Amino acid sequence: MKYKSYKNLNCSVAQALDAVGERWALLILREAFYGATRFNQFANTLGIAKNILSARLSHLVEQGLLQKRPAQETNHTEYVLTDAGRALRTVIVALIQWGDEFRPNPDGTRLFIVEEKTGKPIQKLKIRNEDGNVLGPGELGVRPGPAADKRHRG
Amino acid sequence: MKYKSYKNLNCSVAQALDAVGERWALLILREAFYGATRFNQFANTLGIAKNILSARLSHLVEQGLLQKRPAQETNHTEYVLTDAGRALRTVIVALIQWGDEFRPNPDGTRLFIVEEKTGKPIQKLKIRNEDGNVLGPGELGVRPGPAADKRHRG
Repeated sequence: MKYKSYKNLNCSVAQALDAVGERWALLILREAFYGATRFNQFANTLGIAKNILSARLSHLVEQGLLQKRPAQETNHTEYVLTDAGRALRTVIVALIQWGDEFRPNPDGTRLFIVEEKTGKPIQKLKIRNEDGNVLGPGELGVRPGPAADKRHRG
Repeated sequence: MKYKSYKNLNCSVAQALDAVGERWALLILREAFYGATRFNQFANTLGIAKNILSARLSHLVEQGLLQKRPAQETNHTEYVLTDAGRALRTVIVALIQWGDEFRPNPDGTRLFIVEEKTGKPIQKLKIRNEDGNVLGPGELGVRPGPAADKRHRG
């Protein structure tokens, strides 16, 4: 596609990275996506210092990606994905699929993301036009929308 | 899905974040995806300090996401996406679509990613089973692959 400069910061990528653009934040969300809800589950799996985990969880709650609530059966606190957090699964799946292809483990696939009901791996994410046809990189373009030329730092 | 702990660091998400898990790196790749090739194009659009841009570009070259080469017609250096870099477009599109939905600009869409030929917006990325049916968050699961239980820090 032809290069057009749309000033950086009024940009959905930048906005998304403000919410999750930090290595630990995405790894915490990955664990939440796999089903973790408790502080110790995140701490044990991620091997992250507890003060950092605590700060990162608070950030994700502030950003509206996780909701903090008392667990129903115990007196633990749970962190559960909000709709906005859950919607990041396409980002996480895209990262998983890229990592599997371009940073493979020599022993094979690490984890399969599957359809729960059948146990069969999901499809690779593909970019499709409105009719559902797959588009290659040379077939994509960019057009300014109504908010394209306003500066919107953040 | 049920929570299972698969030790963190043998993980495709972590591997992918090692390559691109930095705000500027993803914004630079976004610009490359929009067609930027020259240092000054990245610098002007991103409003990033030149020493940081220089370090981030070198990192992306080392990681095999950008290739550095002399431009054909001028004596400038060009940075062009490699296949691995180009494959990150699903991650970038996923971030754009999330940002558009959950961090909207009050004036409307910032940029449309379109099919170049028709100018029509692409579809929202969807997670599909092997038959192509769209799967909701509750329909996904995780299964260990052959490399699941090896520890593989990085």
